[in-house]
Amino acid sequence: MPAYGESNVPEALYVSLTDSVRRLVDTTIRSQSDCGAILSAKAKIDSAADELSHSLIPGSFGIQPAADGRSRTWGNAVIGLRNALAPPLVVHHEPGGGVWAEVSLGAAYEGPAGHVHGGICALLLDHVLAATAHKPGRPAVTGTLTVRYEAGTRLGPLRAEAHIDRIEGAKTFAVGHLATPEGVTVRAEGVFFHPRTSSQQV
Amino acid sequence: MPAYGESNVPEALYVSLTDSVRRLVDTTIRSQSDCGAILSAKAKIDSAADELSHSLIPGSFGIQPAADGRSRTWGNAVIGLRNALAPPLVVHHEPGGGVWAEVSLGAAYEGPAGHVHGGICALLLDHVLAATAHKPGRPAVTGTLTVRYEAGTRLGPLRAEAHIDRIEGAKTFAVGHLATPEGVTVRAEGVFFHPRTSSQQV
Repeated sequence: MPAYGESNVPEALYVSLTDSVRRLVDTTIRSQSDCGAILSAKAKIDSAADELSHSLIPGSFGIQPAADGRSRTWGNAVIGLRNALAPPLVVHHEPGGGVWAEVSLGAAYEGPAGHVHGGICALLLDHVLAATAHKPGRPAVTGTLTVRYEAGTRLGPLRAEAHIDRIEGAKTFAVGHLATPEGVTVRAEGVFFHPRTSSQQV
Repeated sequence: MPAYGESNVPEALYVSLTDSVRRLVDTTIRSQSDCGAILSAKAKIDSAADELSHSLIPGSFGIQPAADGRSRTWGNAVIGLRNALAPPLVVHHEPGGGVWAEVSLGAAYEGPAGHVHGGICALLLDHVLAATAHKPGRPAVTGTLTVRYEAGTRLGPLRAEAHIDRIEGAKTFAVGHLATPEGVTVRAEGVFFHPRTSSQQV
């Protein structure tokens, strides 16, 4: 019997399905349709969810081994390709240890009008700072995270960057920031460490 | 002409629609359906999104005035009743200034296997800490937020609490924590202030 996620469904189909759900999340927030259209849309959504629910992974997606020996984090709230809450962030690792990601955030990530919710900024920064401390098979978890808001972060294109400031024993000290095309809006520093079990990941 | 959101659609219908989208987000992560079922579900989701898209609020929901004089934050990433990314959190204010919220988080909020993403913990804490500094018509924004992770936060029922530690001039210093039934897992402290324009909100 195949492990969860080891079915014959191509990854691209999951990506396509989840992108459709992301669009639906956005239109659910911004729709000005009337009651009849909303009721009709809701019936289709419920039918789609029923169709996807004939067999469900119990609980949550977790961290699943893939055929290529790597691990799959398709349910992750920041990078999960099957998670419509995740933008998803694609984290790039530079040879020198730095990491970066570029993403465009829409209506679903709003806090102040027209701006990214401050907590969403913290969510993204937590993930990219932790990524500096990741090692293959040894993901890092957060000890402390400090976030400084220097300006409002407009919805739209964003770049997140982080690098290791220093390593002291088991602790990795990372720093990073978020920037819009107008400049840096939020800075963060964090302390990350490797838990004893490899099943954990930020 | 009615303002955005001032249509004759009852709030309960938006709540019902968004709850359906939340279930769809969850099943999209956990489905073990085959390609045929996924393709069929995706067609229904695209059709529902088309139906909701005939007229869209431009950009994002923002903060909209309601008929009763209060403001609507239905698109907010933490508390927005039309935002399927939001659990949504319902923040309760105590007479003494404390705030609390109880929520149950599922697969969509996962980071480490079976656990809430550390950045989601920061997102929730940012919001409840900021809520201590909110005043009617004068929402607060975050200056700095420091989050300390004391234990992994299991997916499932959570309680978030926060209170004001002290006020110094325009700054509100708030502290709070997240707890599972096993106890406190994450603590936070933050500095919040009131921007000059009332259109902003965390």
